[in-house]
Amino acid sequence: MRAVDLIRKKRDAAELSREEIEFLVEGVTHGHIPDYQIAAWLMAVVWRGMTGAELAALTESMLRSGVVLDWSDLPAAKVDKHSTGGVGDKTSLVIAPVVAAAGLYVPMISGRGLGHTGGTLDKLESIPEFNVNLSLEDFRRVLEASRCALIGQTAEIAPADKKLYALRDVTATVESPYLICASIMSKKMAEGIDALVLDVKTGDGAFMKKQEEAEYLAGLMVETGTRMGKKIVALITGMDQPLGRKVGNTLEVEECIEILHGGGPQDLRELCDELSAWMFFLGGRTKTVGEGRKLAGEMITSGRARDTFREIIRLQGGDPKVVDEPGRLPRAKHVARVAASRAGYVTAIRTEKVGIASMMLGGGREKKEDSVDPGVGLVLEKKIGDAVERGATLCNVHYNLDSRLPYAMNLLSECFEIGDHAPAGQPLVRKIIGASQTQ
Amino acid sequence: MRAVDLIRKKRDAAELSREEIEFLVEGVTHGHIPDYQIAAWLMAVVWRGMTGAELAALTESMLRSGVVLDWSDLPAAKVDKHSTGGVGDKTSLVIAPVVAAAGLYVPMISGRGLGHTGGTLDKLESIPEFNVNLSLEDFRRVLEASRCALIGQTAEIAPADKKLYALRDVTATVESPYLICASIMSKKMAEGIDALVLDVKTGDGAFMKKQEEAEYLAGLMVETGTRMGKKIVALITGMDQPLGRKVGNTLEVEECIEILHGGGPQDLRELCDELSAWMFFLGGRTKTVGEGRKLAGEMITSGRARDTFREIIRLQGGDPKVVDEPGRLPRAKHVARVAASRAGYVTAIRTEKVGIASMMLGGGREKKEDSVDPGVGLVLEKKIGDAVERGATLCNVHYNLDSRLPYAMNLLSECFEIGDHAPAGQPLVRKIIGASQTQ
Repeated sequence: MRAVDLIRKKRDAAELSREEIEFLVEGVTHGHIPDYQIAAWLMAVVWRGMTGAELAALTESMLRSGVVLDWSDLPAAKVDKHSTGGVGDKTSLVIAPVVAAAGLYVPMISGRGLGHTGGTLDKLESIPEFNVNLSLEDFRRVLEASRCALIGQTAEIAPADKKLYALRDVTATVESPYLICASIMSKKMAEGIDALVLDVKTGDGAFMKKQEEAEYLAGLMVETGTRMGKKIVALITGMDQPLGRKVGNTLEVEECIEILHGGGPQDLRELCDELSAWMFFLGGRTKTVGEGRKLAGEMITSGRARDTFREIIRLQGGDPKVVDEPGRLPRAKHVARVAASRAGYVTAIRTEKVGIASMMLGGGREKKEDSVDPGVGLVLEKKIGDAVERGATLCNVHYNLDSRLPYAMNLLSECFEIGDHAPAGQPLVRKIIGASQTQ
Repeated sequence: MRAVDLIRKKRDAAELSREEIEFLVEGVTHGHIPDYQIAAWLMAVVWRGMTGAELAALTESMLRSGVVLDWSDLPAAKVDKHSTGGVGDKTSLVIAPVVAAAGLYVPMISGRGLGHTGGTLDKLESIPEFNVNLSLEDFRRVLEASRCALIGQTAEIAPADKKLYALRDVTATVESPYLICASIMSKKMAEGIDALVLDVKTGDGAFMKKQEEAEYLAGLMVETGTRMGKKIVALITGMDQPLGRKVGNTLEVEECIEILHGGGPQDLRELCDELSAWMFFLGGRTKTVGEGRKLAGEMITSGRARDTFREIIRLQGGDPKVVDEPGRLPRAKHVARVAASRAGYVTAIRTEKVGIASMMLGGGREKKEDSVDPGVGLVLEKKIGDAVERGATLCNVHYNLDSRLPYAMNLLSECFEIGDHAPAGQPLVRKIIGASQTQ
């Protein structure tokens, strides 16, 4: 088998066999095939796409390039949730303890923030001493003890994805839905889970701005997961404004703690309940999604999710007291406010820009190598549909360095659109793809 | 400027600026840009194509990556012909002396054969001691003395093309008409010529099997040459059967010598006259193409083209006596014949297979590194439209190694299609693209 023939085949829109795709992925993993051939093949995939069979073969080959975790000895279903990322998207920190508190296992491997989007690991690391870099042995230990563990990518998991991603990043081949699907699904399937709930974001603050693009990716992921024998569903959810009110690492942990105490913003609570409910349903914990919603609520009301979150933090080396005293989290020194230039109703929020403003304050990363400042970020006082007076606070900006403020303030001053009439509300969950929908 | 942004731009079907294309070509030439980024960009070009402005910028950047020859002190127009390659396509060896004999300069840089097609350099090297590897200084010396010199690619000419071609070869990005155009035109324009006649082959023995593909490439080359201020025309010519009767290095030189003596097959003579005529016309030697045809004939009839050919051979170190005694050329030891299995008319010749049969005998190269056996090849006794008796000789196979014969004979037995009726004849020149056609 020669790589050039497989590139040609894909270039000419033919379907590669499972063996051919395995040959390419093994060539990437072990360095047998030079990067320039893989790069040409990646661009041909961006051009021609992949069939369902090709995509499943790619995902499985990437998955098998490393360790596949096995928790079959643990006595309940293993479930996870994956979000394609957005601004203020912090549901993992609520869902993981909620679902684990109700008896399912949540072996969650997460990522870091990049560009306008945040990452679960960065949020967790704003909890003093919280360690996301567990060995696979410690991952198991925490998972067994608290039914949930929250860690970062390890070198053992899907090494082919790491190499492919590094190459995609410098060859403008990141954006293919097929390659995105294989990247996400190979890592998630390596977690050794039985069921996966996908939160595919759409809107200005998402990677897929258009709903049809989000639906297309969701369809690919659901098909791929199904071909791999997993229970899987994708919720297409709105990212037309930040989720909840808080954006930034400490601020988002704080908002999750509000939710776990039964408070917090309604949209965030609704989405956490919905995603948890699907995890319960797919994991066989409840007979319907509706029952799952009820169970999620009970885990919060009873305080059991809070207990589990404290336990996870303790087992991963962090300070569990933050759950009851969020003032222990690192804070920014200063607060500035963005005021409304006119009265009316908030009609739109330029969400990607809000994310970039948070990044510019130091809350996110422009490049992978950047470090983040946990305390900085923003708190939205107004969201879409809210009435505002002229001069009212639209958002409070938490910052440390004066030098970083002007650019962020400038951006934020352009983020809120104010009109004469409140816009029609849109549901947060736009569509559900895959799975029998027993809601 | 970052290569990844330029790859993305092309991927998204946007037009790159001249500066952006220069950045890429300089990056290739000097190794600043890694091969994997160039490979991804090449595949994006295969996908998205190029605008006329992009293609001219690419061709010029590749041209300027090396030495551009300058013969402006020589007292007549410099002209050349380029063929996209075929089977039995040997016109250069006739045209070069014909055109030089009539007073124009022909600084011809040629290539070697690969796969089913032959190459001018291999043919020339069947002339004992003929040296195609001249330095640029010797190239000038021969050109000044005989108004024609026939050499191979040198390291100084268009080094970007060498690097790009090597990468295209292993990334399945050879076949793009844009990249083919830039590769051909950057090398031809580096010859320092005023006018170029393109012989773009179409049919089974050509790289472009379909006439519309040949026309498309021809259109790109004519546009690119015109943008670069050159006089240029492309003749679309048939490659549905080998040109002339002889295929193989010695055999093809022999057939050219027949033409220069006023004999030889009619189709070969016709095409040589036609291509020479266009060179005369574009080079300002004649006022019309028709006059050019007449002048080409005179150069042959008068023996002046023969004289020039002898002179070129002598100046390049070869044995000029071969022009009068072609028996001095190296010969294969044995001849086998392919006989007709039925009576009728030859309706088609599978020309690519004929070329492969010659390659299998040792007359061509399967891989670039292979050496060629000058004496071997085939002589077609029947061509399309000829009547044949059952058992008549269709073709004689000149071979040296018994081991190479059976595969070639087997292929050749499938090459001639014989039917009940002679097919309608097709003109050799199918279409003329570019230039004001004063024929």
